Amino acid sequence: MALLFKSDIDRPASWIPALESALPDMEVRSWPEVGDPADIDYALVWQPPSGFLASLPNLKAILSIGAGIDHLTRDPELPRHLPLVRMVEPGLTAGMTEFVVMQCLFHHRRMLDYRAQQSRKVWQELAPVAPWQRRIGVMGLGELGADAVERLVQLRFDVAGWSRNRRALAGAACFAGREELPAFLARSDILVCLLPLTEQTDSILNAALFAQLPKGACVINVGRGEHLIERDLLAALEAGQLDSATLDVFRNEPLPPESPLWSHPRVIVTPHIASMTIPETAAEAMAEVIRTLEAGGTPPGLVDLDRGY
Amino acid sequence: MALLFKSDIDRPASWIPALESALPDMEVRSWPEVGDPADIDYALVWQPPSGFLASLPNLKAILSIGAGIDHLTRDPELPRHLPLVRMVEPGLTAGMTEFVVMQCLFHHRRMLDYRAQQSRKVWQELAPVAPWQRRIGVMGLGELGADAVERLVQLRFDVAGWSRNRRALAGAACFAGREELPAFLARSDILVCLLPLTEQTDSILNAALFAQLPKGACVINVGRGEHLIERDLLAALEAGQLDSATLDVFRNEPLPPESPLWSHPRVIVTPHIASMTIPETAAEAMAEVIRTLEAGGTPPGLVDLDRGY
Repeated sequence: MALLFKSDIDRPASWIPALESALPDMEVRSWPEVGDPADIDYALVWQPPSGFLASLPNLKAILSIGAGIDHLTRDPELPRHLPLVRMVEPGLTAGMTEFVVMQCLFHHRRMLDYRAQQSRKVWQELAPVAPWQRRIGVMGLGELGADAVERLVQLRFDVAGWSRNRRALAGAACFAGREELPAFLARSDILVCLLPLTEQTDSILNAALFAQLPKGACVINVGRGEHLIERDLLAALEAGQLDSATLDVFRNEPLPPESPLWSHPRVIVTPHIASMTIPETAAEAMAEVIRTLEAGGTPPGLVDLDRGY
Repeated sequence: MALLFKSDIDRPASWIPALESALPDMEVRSWPEVGDPADIDYALVWQPPSGFLASLPNLKAILSIGAGIDHLTRDPELPRHLPLVRMVEPGLTAGMTEFVVMQCLFHHRRMLDYRAQQSRKVWQELAPVAPWQRRIGVMGLGELGADAVERLVQLRFDVAGWSRNRRALAGAACFAGREELPAFLARSDILVCLLPLTEQTDSILNAALFAQLPKGACVINVGRGEHLIERDLLAALEAGQLDSATLDVFRNEPLPPESPLWSHPRVIVTPHIASMTIPETAAEAMAEVIRTLEAGGTPPGLVDLDRGY
């Protein structure tokens, strides 16, 4: 059996040994050294070229290096009859939760203001808000969203979640569906987007949504760049409807130098690093996925392509 | 019965109504309107003038507005025979934990570097470290330290604690006493100081201590300014022994404009706001302390003056 590894972001140097160690019975090949396409049983990939996966005649399953699969579904020739599995691994989840908790705390504690004060050598207390008086709303309650909600609840925030289908999460109010979105937004002082990118969620962070948040809210987008209408965010910041934002993902990545987001004093820009798959734990998780598939089972992260995630 | 409230920092406007509501049978007086000193049964104070507490002939107990009591013990006329109670209240603990968790995450995720990259419009991933590979050491395991350790463990960090007497904390290695300090320091990539200020801890954050940390460590001081030798910190940053620091407390507060800490690119300066007592929850906690003392009991936060905290 052979596994093909292909990534534009992560260096094969750390991945290949981790995969070989986790899958001792598998030959691991690193793109672009594909060899005979007929040899490839599994493909662990990030942003493969359109049509490439369809060119592997004996492929059994497609494994995504990231939690999102929009980099695969945009390929019109994607072999949709094959199992497609999202990355679900402890390093990815831990990293996203870290980033979300950090950014929520950063905005909650007004650190943009304190950092600006430091640059002016100003010693000035800003009025504190107790965490149980700070309402955080998390959009998207999959593995990543649910874990972030749990940690935010442990930090004593007033947390709510919103998802397409209703979830139950300890300590958090759960809203579901389009009809409950306004009530969810009205109580989100800090809004976190962890949604998958689907036709329904494309451009969901727009002017109409921002207008339903409490005045002076913060927005943290760690979903996909396509969730956000950037000009609507800039207008809402300008108008004071939004206080600040953290953006880790963008429609065009790398974010072009001419983007006004780079130098906006109320926007934190990070280069799509909210969570990065950690090769060692990811290789173990993917080995377990392959063993489950070989045994005819259903692995965690198996995608429903009709649903879109 | 009468309670005297005196603070240099917190505004009486929010405190007095909260205290009156929590203590309906008590007359609440706000400094400097002391009235007849013989009326005062309890004093809830921050930085009272030397000798002032000794001038209240019928004082039953002294309650500190903050978690620290060094602002009281520096008074040579402090009535040491009276019960002295530190502030232990959920708002104070939650605020400190928030700040410690935020700063640990901020350094762990190299946000100083990412913020600097943003200012130069640089889109560049920096190598991630899994939380279980990041060793955090918390010095001081009282109410605040123990709560911070718990949340850091929940975020999957590799956490250790150090205290004068050995504590047991779930999920964290606990070191105790001077003889175990070197082993604790050698495994602290991020060092958090939450110690009380005593003769033993004065200036503990010095060049000799920094030299025992892993190269490139971070230091977060949320104890007292007197814990730190500022010139030693600057030298350790200059030498690369320390990567960065967060300082919330200083020997001279407000931090003087001429301090090089203000403009140091690797130092985050905040104006002693890591945790701020929240009047509503603090008034309830202090009312409970007074009820416990009136009933002859031992309230949480009762200080052992020989021990110093």
